[in-house]
Amino acid sequence: MDGFAVSARDTFGAGPDNLVRLHVGTQARPVNTGRPLPPETDAVVMIENVNFVDEDTFEIDQALVPWQNVRKVGEDFVASEMILPGRHQITPYDMGALLAGGVVSVNVTARPRVIIVPTGSELVPIDKMGETGPPHGLTPEFNSVVLAGLVEQAGGVAVRHEIVADDFESIKAVLEESVRSDANLIVINAGSSAGSEDYTAAAIRDLGEVLVHGVAMMPGKPTILGVVQDKPVMGNPGYPVSAILSFESFGLPVLEAMQGLPRHHRPVTTAVTARKIPSKLGREEFFRVKLGKVGEKQVAASLPRGAGSITTLTRADGILRIPSRSEGVEQGAEVTVELLRTPARIDRTVVVIGSHDLTLDVLADELIPRDVFLSSSHVGSLGGLLALKKDNAHVATSHLLDEETGTYNWSYIKKYLPEIAVKVFHGVMREQGFIVPKGNPKSIRTFMDLTREDVTFVNRQAGAGTRVLLDHHLDKAGIDPSSIRGYELEEYTHTTVAVAVLSGVADVGMGVLAAARALGLDFVPVAVEQYDLVIPEKYLNDEKIVTLLETIRGASFKERVLALGGYGVDRTGEEIPEP
Amino acid sequence: MDGFAVSARDTFGAGPDNLVRLHVGTQARPVNTGRPLPPETDAVVMIENVNFVDEDTFEIDQALVPWQNVRKVGEDFVASEMILPGRHQITPYDMGALLAGGVVSVNVTARPRVIIVPTGSELVPIDKMGETGPPHGLTPEFNSVVLAGLVEQAGGVAVRHEIVADDFESIKAVLEESVRSDANLIVINAGSSAGSEDYTAAAIRDLGEVLVHGVAMMPGKPTILGVVQDKPVMGNPGYPVSAILSFESFGLPVLEAMQGLPRHHRPVTTAVTARKIPSKLGREEFFRVKLGKVGEKQVAASLPRGAGSITTLTRADGILRIPSRSEGVEQGAEVTVELLRTPARIDRTVVVIGSHDLTLDVLADELIPRDVFLSSSHVGSLGGLLALKKDNAHVATSHLLDEETGTYNWSYIKKYLPEIAVKVFHGVMREQGFIVPKGNPKSIRTFMDLTREDVTFVNRQAGAGTRVLLDHHLDKAGIDPSSIRGYELEEYTHTTVAVAVLSGVADVGMGVLAAARALGLDFVPVAVEQYDLVIPEKYLNDEKIVTLLETIRGASFKERVLALGGYGVDRTGEEIPEP
Repeated sequence: MDGFAVSARDTFGAGPDNLVRLHVGTQARPVNTGRPLPPETDAVVMIENVNFVDEDTFEIDQALVPWQNVRKVGEDFVASEMILPGRHQITPYDMGALLAGGVVSVNVTARPRVIIVPTGSELVPIDKMGETGPPHGLTPEFNSVVLAGLVEQAGGVAVRHEIVADDFESIKAVLEESVRSDANLIVINAGSSAGSEDYTAAAIRDLGEVLVHGVAMMPGKPTILGVVQDKPVMGNPGYPVSAILSFESFGLPVLEAMQGLPRHHRPVTTAVTARKIPSKLGREEFFRVKLGKVGEKQVAASLPRGAGSITTLTRADGILRIPSRSEGVEQGAEVTVELLRTPARIDRTVVVIGSHDLTLDVLADELIPRDVFLSSSHVGSLGGLLALKKDNAHVATSHLLDEETGTYNWSYIKKYLPEIAVKVFHGVMREQGFIVPKGNPKSIRTFMDLTREDVTFVNRQAGAGTRVLLDHHLDKAGIDPSSIRGYELEEYTHTTVAVAVLSGVADVGMGVLAAARALGLDFVPVAVEQYDLVIPEKYLNDEKIVTLLETIRGASFKERVLALGGYGVDRTGEEIPEP
Repeated sequence: MDGFAVSARDTFGAGPDNLVRLHVGTQARPVNTGRPLPPETDAVVMIENVNFVDEDTFEIDQALVPWQNVRKVGEDFVASEMILPGRHQITPYDMGALLAGGVVSVNVTARPRVIIVPTGSELVPIDKMGETGPPHGLTPEFNSVVLAGLVEQAGGVAVRHEIVADDFESIKAVLEESVRSDANLIVINAGSSAGSEDYTAAAIRDLGEVLVHGVAMMPGKPTILGVVQDKPVMGNPGYPVSAILSFESFGLPVLEAMQGLPRHHRPVTTAVTARKIPSKLGREEFFRVKLGKVGEKQVAASLPRGAGSITTLTRADGILRIPSRSEGVEQGAEVTVELLRTPARIDRTVVVIGSHDLTLDVLADELIPRDVFLSSSHVGSLGGLLALKKDNAHVATSHLLDEETGTYNWSYIKKYLPEIAVKVFHGVMREQGFIVPKGNPKSIRTFMDLTREDVTFVNRQAGAGTRVLLDHHLDKAGIDPSSIRGYELEEYTHTTVAVAVLSGVADVGMGVLAAARALGLDFVPVAVEQYDLVIPEKYLNDEKIVTLLETIRGASFKERVLALGGYGVDRTGEEIPEP
């Protein structure tokens, strides 16, 4: 404490009625926090309790006991006590404890070095990609960048080898060279399955031993584990998600062991499944899931299972493993999920389920500085309303047209959600129309054109607002849906409809202007429609929802939406009363 | 998929009874995963499903639908979709998604630069400390190292200034120079309270503005927040825990805001308190707690609250904040704890409560490579048994001598834990004796010597096994405890008893040889006693406990314990049956 060091004995008897005087220099010496006690003193009078009566005499009205306001030597720890155990990752706090104990250097484990060898004749190095992406038919090589990031996160040093052609001798030569180097682990990426150009296993077998070829996990099945001259070599599959999960399952434990670290286990949480998740017997399946805290429960919704979709990992909040002996889990089942994000972040996430619109990306981006996150799943307007019914979402997005009244959403809400009190807010007005290739080569102008022999259509799934809009117009025009080629070909978002047109799978689809514009396609306007937010009343006072509504009413959101084209924001954020 | 690209139309009608032949070159072209489809093809026959009938003809027994085994362009995402929102920390997965989208460079926020200025004439730079620690009366300056670590963890760049003397002009000059530099935040460590040499506030006031001086938190109260020429300046207190908590509460949010990041919230968990935790009204108090999963519940035990004990942070599993309007929480209350370690690690932690022994450090160190962690609290033998009664620990450590029978522990267990089925295992045999200064200047040899006028004793707390042992010997020798000076002076561990002797607070205390040896003190042996582990039967099959018992029975543990001196391990790990 800051004050005066004294001998407690000199203060005995002091009290409000018996002030004791102490002389600075002989009986009391000034002392500050952190300094050692002067000799012959054993207590400190706090500076606040000192009353000077002249220049070098003060009075106190309280006695001190020996060692009062004094930190004892060894209060925290003393010689011989263990400050940190071995095999421990040193934190900033730990550095303080080490230095407090006079330890200025410690032996540490060397970072393991990992060589990552991308193989594949279809690959192009990322620094050779131009502004417009990779040349046609080639794929940017990014797995090595992701794996290198995982290595660094796990305390290793990653060395990215240049791309090696799909050719046995080349792969073998690089493997030999890597084994001779100072690398502690060699990862050969892709070429691990049984395709005609998969040479990794052969190269490992030629130089050493293949221990495992194929593991009971999905994605990640074609994983190879081997040893060449006592060095671990791993071959992992080429699909990005497979490559990552395979490396995390088999490469990271090796790095941890090399550093003497305990296995890193991701924190887990429990959640209930939003939908049934079927899984294949005989392999452990790794589902990427979105998590949302809706009401009292946490809901897990599975993302697409394709191993080629790297965004299933970037968008995921967690990973749900379904064991090999299980055929999956039912809707509403309680499951354990390994967390990729903090629970605090998940608590600050608004779960939006329903119709897809490109403005949701803008909204997500606008919410982040307000410390709110958006998780959106695109299952069509009706799917959104049904998610509210199951209390799996905070917000449903919907643009369901009532053909009889020409109004949106409310008649569907009354039909499907009779028991739930909701409010409806204007989202955006948006132009719907025909998405056609640049120049509209088949001159599609009307719904009648969709029935032409030479026209293939791509549809939206049943329950999508755009499907309802299409059916409404077909009905008005007296067109039989079965007369349209491709009516049964269903996509789930505006963007995938536009992709079907761009890639020539279809000649025309229905969707919003922004989707056509984004892919450089042409657009034939058909209708302006209303895209709304449906929110249960019980969530209206939730701080996240309050922030969301404030955000869509703000100038910044509206300006960015207008810049996309094809949108109107005049009434955005206004409540639409029940008619 | 690896296989042959075909036109689905050519496969129509294929079945087990109607094999369809395809000609390689005209109807089928070899293709590998990741390659684009050749023109005029729209599906892929998997290599596994191909049966060659001659060199360039194969048969299939299954028809394909168009686009079967083909990944569509845009399956993951397409141009115009948001890959990542702004203000986002890029993970390895995210790098993959960016590169998959052809994004090879992104704008990022500059790392904020933080100057950390340690002040204090009592400080010695860590690189000037010798092998034996800092010179007498000086303190190693390590707060700046810890704060720099926290800055780097939060994405900033830390610059550690050299130590500045406690002198107004010096501090002001460094502050001026720091404000002129490219630093974005200036942290002046210590000198923030109201002591005679606390010049930080005065320097800030002289050059700019002090916004806040003193905050309602503990530790961390004397925090200063100010602005000089639009740059934030923070003065934080000198005690290590105060410095850290103050910086985490007020400095980290500034760094996050400068990087456009949302507030980082630590994950939280709920726990019940092992003991009552009183707190001062009027300030938010930050308790460092140990967490343990014992049975179904998670138990939080508060560590010492002294702000000078950096190890309260290195040993803590979490932080429990008690709000300023609360006077604390009762024993058994459910509280929310911010996690400093992962829940997975806490689940792998054995909670040991009871008598202190230095071999517990060895045990903790030996368990880590087995992925088990030890949390030990030292409350004396009886305190350990009572912790089992409340089901707050997996293991109690105890060396309670039954004076009548000369046996250890079982009679106390029967008395205090009649309703709990436990097993007892031999821990170590250890020498207890008098811990005296080097050379035993007061020639203490017998219990009678403790009653001498010129001898001050330091005792262990009631309920400690060592206290029971002392009382047993005093009783045998017919000595009245009140005749011993210092009998009422209580310490909680062997080590703190040794420190009391080393620092001259007492002339003698009772404890184990290892504690005396660790501090270079002398030791007069009095008895060999039995230090045991008491474990409820319900935890005996817990994998952690199985590992713990295996470990103490192992050669490595025993060798290290013998090296400490004063220990016997002949029966370590053996079960001691109920007599």
